[in-house]
Amino acid sequence: MRRTALIPLLVLLAAAPPPAIQSPGEIVAAAPASAWRAVDPDNLVLMDLANGGHVAIELAPAFAPAHVANIRALVRGHWFDGNAIVRVQDNYVVQWGGADEKKPLPAGVAAHLPAEYERPRAGLAMRPLGFRDAYAAEVGDADGWPVASDGKSAWLPHCYGMVGVGRDMPPDTGTGAELYTVIGQAPRHLDRNITVVGRVIDGIETMTALPRGTGDLGFYTDPAQRTGIVRARMASDVPAADRPRYQAMRSDAPAFAAYVDARANRRDAFFVRPAGAVDLCNAPVPVRRVP
Amino acid sequence: MRRTALIPLLVLLAAAPPPAIQSPGEIVAAAPASAWRAVDPDNLVLMDLANGGHVAIELAPAFAPAHVANIRALVRGHWFDGNAIVRVQDNYVVQWGGADEKKPLPAGVAAHLPAEYERPRAGLAMRPLGFRDAYAAEVGDADGWPVASDGKSAWLPHCYGMVGVGRDMPPDTGTGAELYTVIGQAPRHLDRNITVVGRVIDGIETMTALPRGTGDLGFYTDPAQRTGIVRARMASDVPAADRPRYQAMRSDAPAFAAYVDARANRRDAFFVRPAGAVDLCNAPVPVRRVP
Repeated sequence: MRRTALIPLLVLLAAAPPPAIQSPGEIVAAAPASAWRAVDPDNLVLMDLANGGHVAIELAPAFAPAHVANIRALVRGHWFDGNAIVRVQDNYVVQWGGADEKKPLPAGVAAHLPAEYERPRAGLAMRPLGFRDAYAAEVGDADGWPVASDGKSAWLPHCYGMVGVGRDMPPDTGTGAELYTVIGQAPRHLDRNITVVGRVIDGIETMTALPRGTGDLGFYTDPAQRTGIVRARMASDVPAADRPRYQAMRSDAPAFAAYVDARANRRDAFFVRPAGAVDLCNAPVPVRRVP
Repeated sequence: MRRTALIPLLVLLAAAPPPAIQSPGEIVAAAPASAWRAVDPDNLVLMDLANGGHVAIELAPAFAPAHVANIRALVRGHWFDGNAIVRVQDNYVVQWGGADEKKPLPAGVAAHLPAEYERPRAGLAMRPLGFRDAYAAEVGDADGWPVASDGKSAWLPHCYGMVGVGRDMPPDTGTGAELYTVIGQAPRHLDRNITVVGRVIDGIETMTALPRGTGDLGFYTDPAQRTGIVRARMASDVPAADRPRYQAMRSDAPAFAAYVDARANRRDAFFVRPAGAVDLCNAPVPVRRVP
């Protein structure tokens, strides 16, 4: 009886082939134009390194408007030109901008800013990730950014490649003149203890492969070990024809939902057991350079 | 009334100073000898790189006995000597041992092994981490190793620095001849899809700072870009006087509990808001070299 009852099902399966299994990368590659938003050139810092690296950083004014305004003024005031990467701590951060503590800040740059560790949850169109998080009650994505929340406040999490504002002990001592990016396991204990201002969207491998500093906290002990920053510019100040353009995947795009699902449930041939879940920092928002 | 009621409490606080706040590093530094177990030299691979790097890898026979035995035979059969690091994929893995696919495996090395993706949970003295995990129902530490579990099975998670066995599509194609270590956000979706055999306990920064490969999956496109492996030895084959010795913190040591608590609740001066939680891969088991 059981065999007979199965026949119609088998016939049905033969008639309708299963949907093609796509890897996360294939889903991203096949995403339609409508799945992407442009990275605003006024939120895009382009940094050229002395080792030939070209680093692109997207700023997040929706989360840290005062610090983003300060960073724009720092870039336009040539603060980073001739500055350097001063710290590379393995499995933690690369930090730059603090090559000369006596250098005065450019005109128009605030020397003290209020901490922008979090913002109201209200006003964010947050797509829930759909899986639990070790740190936050709620995680998801909004407007192409990963977001963590306690239901009332929301903040940018310290995932790989996120950019934060170095500070001294008092919370109002960060200006954006010294920045870092995460190069290891997401140090989420820094969330809500530091202002996060954006993320590296291109060229991070030119910073992550730098020699680790051997001083305390991975600082270089000899200035000669530092990697220089040739210059940093706002993309909006670069002639349009020379300007690299980037897009981030929209949080509300069906392709993004498919991508997160595929990250959580790898069905491509290599995998024998899909995880059935994904960590927020393991489903990084796809970003692409527009040719 | 309220002010008056407070006075005895204030007096009490003045009389009994609060306990000293220790950072995770200070707790580790102050841990007594009883908090540590030795790394068995027969589970310790010492690998010298052509860039001057010295890498120490602790093997985990409690989780992958057949693969660990194979790796010992590979090391003793000089498989890795003159081999190379062939792949560096940013925010993912460094991989070595696959420099020559035609090189025959040394005598005594099995060409096929059963997958060792998990083992029974029973028999492990697992200290619960005490915080939730995005991937597994239960996480914690046992005998100085991070462990994830579904209550029945247990496995080593893909945290930063963990070492896994490269394989082709069929699950029994990994031998240990090609190994990788994690150099980014823990790719936990690989858990239970690959045999994890150990972790790098020293020298990982000599691999993580290597240039990223530009081929598919971060493979180097030109063999000249590879970093050579001068030799690999089992520490137990090195004369005792020349042998580096390491210790891992015991999972059942009070100092380990204090360390995990401090990782979850940073109270040192920089922090304004302790996270109140920690991810398994953000509380790596302390390991130290014995002078």
